[in-house]
Amino acid sequence: MKTKKVAVNKRILVGKPLPNIPWEERPADSNALVWRHSGNPIIDLHPFANARSAYNSCAMPWGSGFIGVFRVDWLCMTPYLHLGRSPDGLKWELDPTPIRFEGADPLLGKPTFAYDPRLCKIGDKYYVTWCNSYYGSTIGQAWTKDFKTFHQLENAFLPYNRNGVLFPKKIGGKYAMLSRPMGLGMAVNYGDIFYSDSPDLTYWGKHRIVMTRGPRKWERVKIGPGPVPIETTEGWLLLYHGVSDTCDSFVYCMGAALLDLDEPWKVLYRCQFPIMSPEVIYETAGYVGNVVFPTAALTDSATGRIAIYYGAADTCTAVAYTKADELVAYVKKHATK
Amino acid sequence: MKTKKVAVNKRILVGKPLPNIPWEERPADSNALVWRHSGNPIIDLHPFANARSAYNSCAMPWGSGFIGVFRVDWLCMTPYLHLGRSPDGLKWELDPTPIRFEGADPLLGKPTFAYDPRLCKIGDKYYVTWCNSYYGSTIGQAWTKDFKTFHQLENAFLPYNRNGVLFPKKIGGKYAMLSRPMGLGMAVNYGDIFYSDSPDLTYWGKHRIVMTRGPRKWERVKIGPGPVPIETTEGWLLLYHGVSDTCDSFVYCMGAALLDLDEPWKVLYRCQFPIMSPEVIYETAGYVGNVVFPTAALTDSATGRIAIYYGAADTCTAVAYTKADELVAYVKKHATK
Amino acid sequence: MKTKKVAVNKRILVGKPLPNIPWEERPADSNALVWRHSGNPIIDLHPFANARSAYNSCAMPWGSGFIGVFRVDWLCMTPYLHLGRSPDGLKWELDPTPIRFEGADPLLGKPTFAYDPRLCKIGDKYYVTWCNSYYGSTIGQAWTKDFKTFHQLENAFLPYNRNGVLFPKKIGGKYAMLSRPMGLGMAVNYGDIFYSDSPDLTYWGKHRIVMTRGPRKWERVKIGPGPVPIETTEGWLLLYHGVSDTCDSFVYCMGAALLDLDEPWKVLYRCQFPIMSPEVIYETAGYVGNVVFPTAALTDSATGRIAIYYGAADTCTAVAYTKADELVAYVKKHATK
Amino acid sequence: MKTKKVAVNKRILVGKPLPNIPWEERPADSNALVWRHSGNPIIDLHPFANARSAYNSCAMPWGSGFIGVFRVDWLCMTPYLHLGRSPDGLKWELDPTPIRFEGADPLLGKPTFAYDPRLCKIGDKYYVTWCNSYYGSTIGQAWTKDFKTFHQLENAFLPYNRNGVLFPKKIGGKYAMLSRPMGLGMAVNYGDIFYSDSPDLTYWGKHRIVMTRGPRKWERVKIGPGPVPIETTEGWLLLYHGVSDTCDSFVYCMGAALLDLDEPWKVLYRCQFPIMSPEVIYETAGYVGNVVFPTAALTDSATGRIAIYYGAADTCTAVAYTKADELVAYVKKHATK
Amino acid sequence: MKTKKVAVNKRILVGKPLPNIPWEERPADSNALVWRHSGNPIIDLHPFANARSAYNSCAMPWGSGFIGVFRVDWLCMTPYLHLGRSPDGLKWELDPTPIRFEGADPLLGKPTFAYDPRLCKIGDKYYVTWCNSYYGSTIGQAWTKDFKTFHQLENAFLPYNRNGVLFPKKIGGKYAMLSRPMGLGMAVNYGDIFYSDSPDLTYWGKHRIVMTRGPRKWERVKIGPGPVPIETTEGWLLLYHGVSDTCDSFVYCMGAALLDLDEPWKVLYRCQFPIMSPEVIYETAGYVGNVVFPTAALTDSATGRIAIYYGAADTCTAVAYTKADELVAYVKKHATK
Amino acid sequence: MKTKKVAVNKRILVGKPLPNIPWEERPADSNALVWRHSGNPIIDLHPFANARSAYNSCAMPWGSGFIGVFRVDWLCMTPYLHLGRSPDGLKWELDPTPIRFEGADPLLGKPTFAYDPRLCKIGDKYYVTWCNSYYGSTIGQAWTKDFKTFHQLENAFLPYNRNGVLFPKKIGGKYAMLSRPMGLGMAVNYGDIFYSDSPDLTYWGKHRIVMTRGPRKWERVKIGPGPVPIETTEGWLLLYHGVSDTCDSFVYCMGAALLDLDEPWKVLYRCQFPIMSPEVIYETAGYVGNVVFPTAALTDSATGRIAIYYGAADTCTAVAYTKADELVAYVKKHATK
Repeated sequence: MKTKKVAVNKRILVGKPLPNIPWEERPADSNALVWRHSGNPIIDLHPFANARSAYNSCAMPWGSGFIGVFRVDWLCMTPYLHLGRSPDGLKWELDPTPIRFEGADPLLGKPTFAYDPRLCKIGDKYYVTWCNSYYGSTIGQAWTKDFKTFHQLENAFLPYNRNGVLFPKKIGGKYAMLSRPMGLGMAVNYGDIFYSDSPDLTYWGKHRIVMTRGPRKWERVKIGPGPVPIETTEGWLLLYHGVSDTCDSFVYCMGAALLDLDEPWKVLYRCQFPIMSPEVIYETAGYVGNVVFPTAALTDSATGRIAIYYGAADTCTAVAYTKADELVAYVKKHATK
Repeated sequence: MKTKKVAVNKRILVGKPLPNIPWEERPADSNALVWRHSGNPIIDLHPFANARSAYNSCAMPWGSGFIGVFRVDWLCMTPYLHLGRSPDGLKWELDPTPIRFEGADPLLGKPTFAYDPRLCKIGDKYYVTWCNSYYGSTIGQAWTKDFKTFHQLENAFLPYNRNGVLFPKKIGGKYAMLSRPMGLGMAVNYGDIFYSDSPDLTYWGKHRIVMTRGPRKWERVKIGPGPVPIETTEGWLLLYHGVSDTCDSFVYCMGAALLDLDEPWKVLYRCQFPIMSPEVIYETAGYVGNVVFPTAALTDSATGRIAIYYGAADTCTAVAYTKADELVAYVKKHATK
Repeated sequence: MKTKKVAVNKRILVGKPLPNIPWEERPADSNALVWRHSGNPIIDLHPFANARSAYNSCAMPWGSGFIGVFRVDWLCMTPYLHLGRSPDGLKWELDPTPIRFEGADPLLGKPTFAYDPRLCKIGDKYYVTWCNSYYGSTIGQAWTKDFKTFHQLENAFLPYNRNGVLFPKKIGGKYAMLSRPMGLGMAVNYGDIFYSDSPDLTYWGKHRIVMTRGPRKWERVKIGPGPVPIETTEGWLLLYHGVSDTCDSFVYCMGAALLDLDEPWKVLYRCQFPIMSPEVIYETAGYVGNVVFPTAALTDSATGRIAIYYGAADTCTAVAYTKADELVAYVKKHATK
Repeated sequence: MKTKKVAVNKRILVGKPLPNIPWEERPADSNALVWRHSGNPIIDLHPFANARSAYNSCAMPWGSGFIGVFRVDWLCMTPYLHLGRSPDGLKWELDPTPIRFEGADPLLGKPTFAYDPRLCKIGDKYYVTWCNSYYGSTIGQAWTKDFKTFHQLENAFLPYNRNGVLFPKKIGGKYAMLSRPMGLGMAVNYGDIFYSDSPDLTYWGKHRIVMTRGPRKWERVKIGPGPVPIETTEGWLLLYHGVSDTCDSFVYCMGAALLDLDEPWKVLYRCQFPIMSPEVIYETAGYVGNVVFPTAALTDSATGRIAIYYGAADTCTAVAYTKADELVAYVKKHATK
Repeated sequence: MKTKKVAVNKRILVGKPLPNIPWEERPADSNALVWRHSGNPIIDLHPFANARSAYNSCAMPWGSGFIGVFRVDWLCMTPYLHLGRSPDGLKWELDPTPIRFEGADPLLGKPTFAYDPRLCKIGDKYYVTWCNSYYGSTIGQAWTKDFKTFHQLENAFLPYNRNGVLFPKKIGGKYAMLSRPMGLGMAVNYGDIFYSDSPDLTYWGKHRIVMTRGPRKWERVKIGPGPVPIETTEGWLLLYHGVSDTCDSFVYCMGAALLDLDEPWKVLYRCQFPIMSPEVIYETAGYVGNVVFPTAALTDSATGRIAIYYGAADTCTAVAYTKADELVAYVKKHATK
Repeated sequence: MKTKKVAVNKRILVGKPLPNIPWEERPADSNALVWRHSGNPIIDLHPFANARSAYNSCAMPWGSGFIGVFRVDWLCMTPYLHLGRSPDGLKWELDPTPIRFEGADPLLGKPTFAYDPRLCKIGDKYYVTWCNSYYGSTIGQAWTKDFKTFHQLENAFLPYNRNGVLFPKKIGGKYAMLSRPMGLGMAVNYGDIFYSDSPDLTYWGKHRIVMTRGPRKWERVKIGPGPVPIETTEGWLLLYHGVSDTCDSFVYCMGAALLDLDEPWKVLYRCQFPIMSPEVIYETAGYVGNVVFPTAALTDSATGRIAIYYGAADTCTAVAYTKADELVAYVKKHATK
């Protein structure tokens, strides 16, 4: 556990400032790299009538506040995507009607479920990617400019896939996506992160491995990309989930890595430790215990603040905070050789 | 999630009034259809020496108070049936000696376990049915008039079965029972509800499907009958458990349906949503987390009050309340097409 | 492997003589207790157009020849029941149209499969019992007097069951059936033999264990009744299948036991050895390798000859021969203590 | 099993004549739709030193004879692709050196296995597609004009996939491929056939379901495309494999369907019966028993003859014959509703 | 649940007095045989930087305070052994550098994990045994006199094993060890306790069964030795863990037995009830819920006090108390016949 | 598949000449390294009454002929060890009474099975080691000088183990054994070869890995030692079994390696190819298809001839031949890097 000294520029976030980013300072008695919002969970059970829970969801600045796309498990436990609005990124009002996607080829049919959305702004369009049902799980794609009309595109890949995450700008002139191919069923016990690109969001190819699961125990079962990668001067900061197995279940933690800016399938640094793991009761017990599942991050380039949205125990939505420079330094310092 | 307007007679319970039914009004800040007793769990760990827990059990009015048959897991975790007495249906005193069943054919042997009893009054007899051990799990049957002497009858079915629930009166001149056939072992991941009838409680036949599991996710793994069906003017109100799977375990919720009064294998309405699911810590964590398992219901026809006894987390006994008219209206409004 | 001397009356078969019983003498160079018909398999692949195979089936004397009910797997591999006719019990002509069962409650629906029939004469009626589809596998029942019209009765039991085998006369004034309760799916790896009786073939009860699987390795996974029990002066001669597991599959052998004539749930003798096991290529290779599955036996009380019909490798129908007195003596001599 | 009269033009094959197509007439005593080559297997164990077996392979007319790409399992059981040459399509000489693919992005690495190739001529190029190793199984692609230099392209899809089969001409101006997405590992017990297209063989999209497994038992576990679809006047004739499960293994049969010529994801007719199933010893026993796995077909439009190459028992290469008009008529007559 | 009167000498602990043993009297409102320390858990998450948790660990008197060997799961979830020091046995300071074992044959390699240590004093040496990685899990052995230099010995057994526990003195002139052979992987669902002896700690043999799992439900899946056996006038007091299965996970309880002093493979009394089971939230929820796993016990022969260290939920270290005479009396009174 | 030139001394066998070794020359049309005896199987089904089969067994020169210890599966499929005698090593007469082992500690109990023996001469004693039942599978040990009285020793290891194979002389002054630790049950899908030594055959230790399974596909699931290692001038020649998995079963092949003479845990050469695999019908079909399982080898140092006894399909005993110099050269030439 020897560590190397690493110098990191404090101003490393490339994006825009976000003065109203949700934020709490690290508690005085803590030296944690990532710390929990004191009001967690920010969205608890029954966010609205007929909804059981909302989690594994995404937020984005919008107007003077925030907007988001949420995985909502209805009372019948089927997940659909719902829009949410918030003045501060912490108090959310969810639309009880699921998002309606328009314009897709009728052959794609009416999805029987939709979950774990990601939200990515490229140019002036907001793209939603999600786990979509089409004779198995695959990656649904849609865009909107106004969060009123959502234009559905082709599914990105053949089944079976989950956790399709777009890069917030083109790489080498192409759209770029991370995803985690898998097999049929929820209990799949493997999964690696791949990179694919596309000239048009319809046709995808040039699939490249980014990171395989393991070898550290906390991520030896499967890994999958989390929030849209965060551009930094040190590379793309990728937050992801890593899954360990115990004698009778899985444990989902949050990990971090830095990918090459131009060739993101090249891993510059991969932190050997998870940066957050299930520890408090709303993370260790619930619909699926021991789950910390990050899906979105807000960043303020002026201060280096990062607010991470994560699903806890497949039951509620929570927020955690970190500082970009500290996080990147930690990833470098504890990088797997 | 479109809903239809449904008119329901407020006085729909057919049974007797029960003025001393355990009861708490719905909390002021709640609009829940079913709400938890504020003193839950009413029976916690170690109800008596050598007993680990009591749950999945039944209560019945008796004299000025209540009597019940309880599943008690001994310290060694083997379950047996014990009698309990209560002045108010909430505070219970359990008899530390298991119920002794008499008169059975010696070939049926001494059961190695007995659990998940149901208690049903037909005429002037009280019938206990339970999951009985006989070269596998099957449905044990016994009756008593005084809760002192219990007369054991033949097992109703061949193994493997669980959750045998009698109707409180004969249907078409025959005794009638719901049950959930299964296979060997606790981890069986399928189960539907069947109806059978019998001229004499010894010979059973004319087996009919009532409801199959699914298609909604919350009940897609297995379903099984809960309390003795409640007679209403709208049909037999059946509370049942539905089981969902997650990536590493099961989740047991409570569902509701209305069955035809004369041909109970015909489902009139089946609610597409569970009416209660594991949400509080004594339901989500324990011996088996995420279990809400209803096994008995008291009803007061005068007020429409229903008090539901359910096992929580295979660890403790809890109570929830609802109103008959509201529940029936909800079932109809949200009926699966 | 110590053996006891046992005296057996040579004339032990109680039934009628059957002079035209299919028969071959034991080969000169063999001292086998049970020996194969030299022309095996008697029904090979493609017994008629659109039929893939016929096996696990039953024969019965009829007129001057024989009649039978056959499991026929269609080309699509779905099994149905077909009638067959034979002048000698060895050459069979199968009716390409499945047997039509009439008169059942429409609620029982149209079965999606039907297989492994047994054929039993009680009084002047011929009863067919089989593995019937009704929200799982259960025991279908029907009767005919002319093999033209088949009257379907209620299913005997709740799912899940297989191998329902009637006794050829009432026991204690009741119809009596052996069966093997199981769980959902083909790969169930447990199964014991139970006895049930019925006043009317509609309502069944008084379920009693007859034999549990094991402890000998060849039958340690599951056992199930085979042909209709053969009445002998020494008890009911029960041929059954016993299943062993290897490191990657199952092996089905034929076993034998003697049951008490009046209380057939009492085992008088149970042979510790299988009396026949998969050894020749049409038994060890095929649709399911290593299967010897007896389903019918013809007997000639005058000579003690027994002709056993068995399915081989779930692919073809074969016949084996033995002598009643020798078989019973062997069972007694090698009885499990 | 009611059948409809169907009229089929005898001259339905659209491709070129192939006078030297391997061929044997249907045996006189047979009325089989598809019949086996009398000299099967045409390639048995140990086709050359260090090779254990060759199967699941493809042939193509070449010069005055035939050329092929073969799956060869080396003695160590790892499969690689090898070239083979034959004067008559039946006697084959395999090149002991694996095919070397050139020009691929070095990031694709050196494959650890390659198997189940398909060979497709589009224009003047011969395309090989195969199950390629890249952090899981995916579809490798390469082309050659001379069978000397093979130019490797990008893998078509993300893992996990198998059985990528190109159409022999562009559809709607795009390259078109059938494939069978799956999960990790050999024992995957699901699989459907999808259609994808591509402007350039690098980027693929517009994924559409063609056929799902089931509902007939012989194909209820998984299905996958076999030979390159055969163009007929009645539609694309697709031969495919369908897999059934038994109590302890899988059974692979050959099925047939007709797809719309312009929109091949539309199934015109799907035969409810397999057109060939494992029946002879070299199909029922071997490395993996009960496997008939078609991967290539030669056709002679002048006579309607079709010679099908199939792997038998994952052990050897075999050939079967049929007539285009009879096959198409059979598919239509026995089409699943 | 009939009980026998048993007389037990109050002064039954054979070892030394330990006046500063951690201790709390049984709470006034409790009649529990074993009661929890009020300040549990004594070591919670993040005992030091880069450490996720410490549990399943051992304490020993040392100087005026206590010393211990701890299983510490690093943030990456890999477990290693760390030294800890405490003034009172309750407040612990853990050394962030893992224990370095010296002198082992280089062929034994660098272990990839080390966990669940036991600490045993024999003569003037302190022996550590633990679950060591060597091409599977086996029992590592080492000794120290000063807790500064640890001399590693040969692994005691071939893989796969876990829970190697030395006796604190030689038996019949030989070193003696209890262990629990198993198979590969964490989810092994079987395990019995064996006894082995050794002349030199290098060569082990004369393996004898001590106790098999079951038959009581709480220990029917697997059992394994816990703390170093405690010498009493009534026999070796063995605390052990017993594991039950539920429908979706395991439950680990603490059991107790008395072994013959001279022939410890002979069980004198085995308590049919667990003496402690997971009941409070830090035992029922965490990394692995429902785990009470005892690994060390301190005893004070002057008072009969026993302080038991146990891992809770594979997440934290906890302490429980009992009295030797009461515990032994309970074991005898509730001994399995 | 590049190969290196290797020079091998033709006279490399160190042992005694055995002029009457069973032998057939390599068939004229074969260039196989290992070729089958033309009269295989040499022991087929039913070697004697009440015996189903004999396989996985050992032969040894004895007097003017041969003696052997055989695994005999009785009709009930339970395996026991039986003695066999042969004039020529090919025709065997088996003793129908199992070998009686004497002198063991009564605590070891009466074994419920015994199988897969190995026979090794060290000095003037003949040692039998076998898979012995003692609360799981472990390695039984016994010796004899006259094949009349067999003296049973302690079991070598704790369960679970199989395939204990002694070296024919002491290594470093100690008895030496190879074995394959495993877990409970027949279907264990892992297994590596370990080396252990012992001063006295009672206490074993210093366990060292010899070879792990994989990476070649044919041996990627598990490996285990076969015959007693053959001493050659080039090292210990180890024949072993390697197991591959297919989509539904296992395939057992024979492999070869050379171990260091003085430090046999060091592998000098390991052949990347199996030297024999299941190819003929008595190897591919039977009780367990696709099994070639070598357990004994006779060698003639004068000629370099080796006769290998192997079990085929867990059904019969077969013999194969090879030449020591050719085999060693092949192993070296095709050694895994």
